Amino acid sequence: MTDIGTIAILGGTGKEGTGLALRWAKAGLCVLIGSRDPAKAERVAAELNAKLGREAIRGLGNLDAAAQGEIVVLTVPYAAHLSTLAQVKEALAGKVLVDVTVPLDPENVRRVKLPPAGSAAQEAQQFLGEGVRVVSAFQNISETLLHDAEGPIDCDVLVCGNDKEAKRTVIRLAELAGMRAFDGGPVENSAAAEALTSVLIHLNIRYKVRGAGIRFTRVPG
Amino acid sequence: MTDIGTIAILGGTGKEGTGLALRWAKAGLCVLIGSRDPAKAERVAAELNAKLGREAIRGLGNLDAAAQGEIVVLTVPYAAHLSTLAQVKEALAGKVLVDVTVPLDPENVRRVKLPPAGSAAQEAQQFLGEGVRVVSAFQNISETLLHDAEGPIDCDVLVCGNDKEAKRTVIRLAELAGMRAFDGGPVENSAAAEALTSVLIHLNIRYKVRGAGIRFTRVPG
Repeated sequence: MTDIGTIAILGGTGKEGTGLALRWAKAGLCVLIGSRDPAKAERVAAELNAKLGREAIRGLGNLDAAAQGEIVVLTVPYAAHLSTLAQVKEALAGKVLVDVTVPLDPENVRRVKLPPAGSAAQEAQQFLGEGVRVVSAFQNISETLLHDAEGPIDCDVLVCGNDKEAKRTVIRLAELAGMRAFDGGPVENSAAAEALTSVLIHLNIRYKVRGAGIRFTRVPG
Repeated sequence: MTDIGTIAILGGTGKEGTGLALRWAKAGLCVLIGSRDPAKAERVAAELNAKLGREAIRGLGNLDAAAQGEIVVLTVPYAAHLSTLAQVKEALAGKVLVDVTVPLDPENVRRVKLPPAGSAAQEAQQFLGEGVRVVSAFQNISETLLHDAEGPIDCDVLVCGNDKEAKRTVIRLAELAGMRAFDGGPVENSAAAEALTSVLIHLNIRYKVRGAGIRFTRVPG
């Protein structure tokens, strides 16, 4: 069905991870979800397979998932960002890491506070070195949209990173999950997507809505 | 026609400043454009009035414009951001400063590089102190759209700052200029809009388009 290999989603038992897992499994991809707790990952995978009506998703520990995945997606809270990467670093060599992490400020998630490196994606790229192609994406897609919407999602995905081929792969992953995605430039530009997440949380509260998102205008796609 | 007082646009002879000046003058507002060179400001004001068919815009030096304006808008290149503020600081006391400045990196305008303070708007608020209500806005509106489009602009405006009343005024200013605008949260959230400008420049080049912009989805407006 597609030449995209096995996708491993680390921290994949959360709302963002399970939403992506379901959408990719529906598109025919082979999906692993990883967790610190392998038993929890197996349990959540079973629940997702029950929803799908077939065995498309497997649950594993984060390290096993990272080792078996050909593309590795990271959907952990920011507090676990670098510690999770440290745990799986060896297993990521030569692979594409799709970083979904948003550096939300626990003191106020509605207020932008980017890390000194500029963005979580830059922290990942610096920590992992050039041998791993870090691509940031999906930070602005609300869990509400991932789970509630059956069809296409009315929020675009900004895909940032330094490797063009890796970005093309991630744009395809987004499209397979029902989203429009754009090459947003180098890894530094992830700051825009990461900062926007706090703004979208603010908009949800300020305007009493759910699932606020963004669309890019005047760009074909 | 409106209770919004005189608008002074510092650095108002550039493409962004003249675009805003024309749109606000068309909406019936009283507009001053400021420049380091008062003669240039007068010349550009005369050109804009010729386009409008009436005398709605006056040209002045930046300091005179800041002193006479009730709301002051700053549309200068980032290199002139703090030096212009230093020049007009006294004249801004008690007023609303609408900061349109984007901290583009002269080495690569397509790559996000935010200042250590987090954003240009935070630099302005810190420099001016609490006696000036800094509101950031309009960073994502391309000059192309401001000048070419006769009617509504298909790009939303994110309005960030710490004073709710000042943000309401700026949202109205945006609407008078034909744009949809949202309260984007505290001044720190200006980082999202400022970073997005580099992303939009990247999208224009990468996808060979002009005037790429953003729309917020699922938010009423």
